[in-house]
Amino acid sequence: MEGKEEDVRVGANRFRERQPIGTAAQTPDAKDYIEPPPAPLIEPGEIFSWSFYRAGIAEFVATFLFLYITILTVMGVSKSPSKCSTVGIQGIAWAFGGMIFALVYCTAGISGGHINPAVTFGLFLARKLSLTRTVFYIIMQCLGAICGAAVVKGFEKSQYEVLGGGANSVNAGYSKGSGLGAEIVGTFVLVYTVFSATDAKRNARDSHVPILAPLPIGFAVFLVHLATIPVTGTGINPARSLGAALIYDKEHVWDEHWIFWVGPFIGAALAALYHQIVIRAIPFKSN
Amino acid sequence: MEGKEEDVRVGANRFRERQPIGTAAQTPDAKDYIEPPPAPLIEPGEIFSWSFYRAGIAEFVATFLFLYITILTVMGVSKSPSKCSTVGIQGIAWAFGGMIFALVYCTAGISGGHINPAVTFGLFLARKLSLTRTVFYIIMQCLGAICGAAVVKGFEKSQYEVLGGGANSVNAGYSKGSGLGAEIVGTFVLVYTVFSATDAKRNARDSHVPILAPLPIGFAVFLVHLATIPVTGTGINPARSLGAALIYDKEHVWDEHWIFWVGPFIGAALAALYHQIVIRAIPFKSN
Amino acid sequence: MEGKEEDVRVGANRFRERQPIGTAAQTPDAKDYIEPPPAPLIEPGEIFSWSFYRAGIAEFVATFLFLYITILTVMGVSKSPSKCSTVGIQGIAWAFGGMIFALVYCTAGISGGHINPAVTFGLFLARKLSLTRTVFYIIMQCLGAICGAAVVKGFEKSQYEVLGGGANSVNAGYSKGSGLGAEIVGTFVLVYTVFSATDAKRNARDSHVPILAPLPIGFAVFLVHLATIPVTGTGINPARSLGAALIYDKEHVWDEHWIFWVGPFIGAALAALYHQIVIRAIPFKSN
Amino acid sequence: MEGKEEDVRVGANRFRERQPIGTAAQTPDAKDYIEPPPAPLIEPGEIFSWSFYRAGIAEFVATFLFLYITILTVMGVSKSPSKCSTVGIQGIAWAFGGMIFALVYCTAGISGGHINPAVTFGLFLARKLSLTRTVFYIIMQCLGAICGAAVVKGFEKSQYEVLGGGANSVNAGYSKGSGLGAEIVGTFVLVYTVFSATDAKRNARDSHVPILAPLPIGFAVFLVHLATIPVTGTGINPARSLGAALIYDKEHVWDEHWIFWVGPFIGAALAALYHQIVIRAIPFKSN
Repeated sequence: MEGKEEDVRVGANRFRERQPIGTAAQTPDAKDYIEPPPAPLIEPGEIFSWSFYRAGIAEFVATFLFLYITILTVMGVSKSPSKCSTVGIQGIAWAFGGMIFALVYCTAGISGGHINPAVTFGLFLARKLSLTRTVFYIIMQCLGAICGAAVVKGFEKSQYEVLGGGANSVNAGYSKGSGLGAEIVGTFVLVYTVFSATDAKRNARDSHVPILAPLPIGFAVFLVHLATIPVTGTGINPARSLGAALIYDKEHVWDEHWIFWVGPFIGAALAALYHQIVIRAIPFKSN
Repeated sequence: MEGKEEDVRVGANRFRERQPIGTAAQTPDAKDYIEPPPAPLIEPGEIFSWSFYRAGIAEFVATFLFLYITILTVMGVSKSPSKCSTVGIQGIAWAFGGMIFALVYCTAGISGGHINPAVTFGLFLARKLSLTRTVFYIIMQCLGAICGAAVVKGFEKSQYEVLGGGANSVNAGYSKGSGLGAEIVGTFVLVYTVFSATDAKRNARDSHVPILAPLPIGFAVFLVHLATIPVTGTGINPARSLGAALIYDKEHVWDEHWIFWVGPFIGAALAALYHQIVIRAIPFKSN
Repeated sequence: MEGKEEDVRVGANRFRERQPIGTAAQTPDAKDYIEPPPAPLIEPGEIFSWSFYRAGIAEFVATFLFLYITILTVMGVSKSPSKCSTVGIQGIAWAFGGMIFALVYCTAGISGGHINPAVTFGLFLARKLSLTRTVFYIIMQCLGAICGAAVVKGFEKSQYEVLGGGANSVNAGYSKGSGLGAEIVGTFVLVYTVFSATDAKRNARDSHVPILAPLPIGFAVFLVHLATIPVTGTGINPARSLGAALIYDKEHVWDEHWIFWVGPFIGAALAALYHQIVIRAIPFKSN
Repeated sequence: MEGKEEDVRVGANRFRERQPIGTAAQTPDAKDYIEPPPAPLIEPGEIFSWSFYRAGIAEFVATFLFLYITILTVMGVSKSPSKCSTVGIQGIAWAFGGMIFALVYCTAGISGGHINPAVTFGLFLARKLSLTRTVFYIIMQCLGAICGAAVVKGFEKSQYEVLGGGANSVNAGYSKGSGLGAEIVGTFVLVYTVFSATDAKRNARDSHVPILAPLPIGFAVFLVHLATIPVTGTGINPARSLGAALIYDKEHVWDEHWIFWVGPFIGAALAALYHQIVIRAIPFKSN
């Protein structure tokens, strides 16, 4: 059962199981680099392995904690009449980015540490994980996000409804097109960082790249929040947007909800294209 | 006497002494991983070793410095009529998280770097240290915390009594249940990060994980403070709550003091359960 | 075509191609250190290699994302009447420094991760890259910066023109000489950090220095912004100053634009001199 | 001339020159640990080596940049009527801590990266460097600090004199004893972190400890500033206090100047005692 446990590997946990431990690309002193084969769309074996379900549980728990900490931080800032006596908008940006740093560090070895359907989708397009696993992860992430936001609402129900509960929407002064654009570029920054930080060729050369990867990934989330909280409140994570919207659940929040799925998925797809085609030139390689 | 010194190892310093240096699980290039045996409840030998008392002194000094820096930061923010001319609530969160980062980095090789009875309790439940050591650490942490808060009070006695001295309590607008919940989930985030970052299996594969571990652990403390300072002032560390309460010592601060022991201990226990049973599946492993 | 891909190396990507993989200076356990030969002024081969153009594309995309995130953050802070309800000036400093950290981490292995004509110029003076590559990088960085600022203007055209769009100028209360001085010393701090962090001798001894280098480099940018935003808005990157000025394009912004090219180039030249002559004493070495 | 260059080693650069490269304690895979012999009080050879003077120049330049960036940040915050439209007090704390992080990273391999007479004094007490070098470093640090503050004054002379130029003094509401105490404990936190992060025994086991050490050291400086800016403005670095005082040079600033030499030196001595006697038990070791 637990004999199929994965290795510490940020972003793309499936990779290891298809290569026997000890091949050149896996050992820290490897000089040669072999592109791992693409993950199959459906891998029947994995749904019978404990590590598959454990990874789903880890994604659920991580997304639960992500929404709990971030939405509680948003509520604390929203409640106070003076932002000066709170952690401020910058504190909100730290909450989102810092949680991704800590949670990617913690769950990288178990599930790959996605905690975000857009990241899962981007890695799926690069064939780093199977379709089965992609769908399972996204469902677990959304369930975790809903539960995390629900606990925050449980702490302060009336306040939550007045103050919006951290739900995303395009702010006054911006068109829907700008909001969609902000989500696309923001998610591109995040998923491009994920691909760069977890590049298998780079890992093959230097075994501690995956250990350091959570820091730039967390910073990418922090930075996008600094820039786009005034535009959309910053989604770049459809599970986070869905969880906050579903627990808030006022009608108008659903009007623009599509932006927080379409934008991140387009951004993740562009990042996957950029990394696989421009940077790695994978389609042009024979073998 | 000092021939039994421990290795640099965050979280679980006892572990090394029960395995001879040079076994597969300890060397950086180990591919095999062997679960270390659980620590005995009572290990009579350790109370005669200098390293046992040195570890206690290190916990005392670290918790002393932790309370000194953090409570002095809280006082500086509380005293100013405008939070804008202070480091702000976000600065308080950095003080707590940053001190844990620096102190875990400094004391990991001496005592395991707990600086928190909830962390010690969680690691004890996972059988990473003996009951003797657990009790000794918790006593030294509480004494250090009391002394740290006392020095801050010595700097500005009248102010300290007016402004509350950083003592924890459930803030207006939150029920005691919410406060308890916030302490449970907050401590879960911290102790879950400690377990993930110090996972022995992960360390066996990659020798620099324990060196990097203080950063996500410090960030976890920072993040929980961002979220729950408006709820309870954030305990998640019974020694910190006890030290601040005992030096402040107004009657009402004791009314809710149990929350800052029960909450962290429940959170630590849940994190230990989650890591040992769901993630590591230790009970289901033969041998 | 893609057989000539570079290694993960911050700052000076050309270096690797002139030394066969596996020489003493390249392997992690190298004790001997051999100063790499200076890059030729014109290296005809490189303009026929895909890695040359890929590096230019990576510099374009990185500078695009750098301007997009930072100028959008500046706009968010500028728009609000109360800085307290924004990420604040400190948030702007984090945006600039944090993006450099994340982008250097992501592009170090592709182009050396310059993202700044002053860095490219400093490394050229130290003969770390050819003149061809220097000119190509600077053009791509400027084009990327212009496009990044343009997207932000596209989001909020009228606001952009009222609020200055993050264009650099010497603030009231400072002479042009002070502004120039601030740009010189600020760029010195940045390029000195780049040289120290990417020192080939240091890398030869310790293979993970290049992996850690993006963090102090990003911090250097953050720190210079903390100090000189009140003086000049902080350039220390001519592409960033050009992009913001060209998209804002009011006449007065061009009056002092030379400061943001001359200052950074002098600062970068001084840092290159200091590192190569004082620290490394390269001119005094035989062989 | 340049044949005696030191290795990358934070804190204690003399150590390497007394041990031939390649002994067990120096190689990354060393299991045995040998306490390095204490540095002699006077080492006549070193004053004829280029590396000695280069180290002094590096300390001068680093302390110059340290004062320049930090005092300019302090001035930017002081000048603004509303702290909200500046980087704030927290931004000042980041400037001090962040500069120490970046500068220790940059100069560790050249001079040991002290940038602070109290650190140099603490390492001298632990016999990590000779008396000659200690005196030379402290003089160069003070000269660098004076020049750094002078450049800031040159930018804005009248403002500098009105606003105090970042000079340290005990703030209203605190006794001189509290101010001295704050300097002692603050410097203890810093120098204790330096000793823990650069522990030779720890380095012998794990070769990347010295590379990571600048981060906790920088954080220690940041944290002490968060706590004691309201008390004394935070010295914990006599060169920084001297440079700011000498360039400001109003009479009252000299009344309490002794506190910013006596306090840091006592704190550094206590940290050296704690590390060498309690943690390392060096006096009790035979051989």
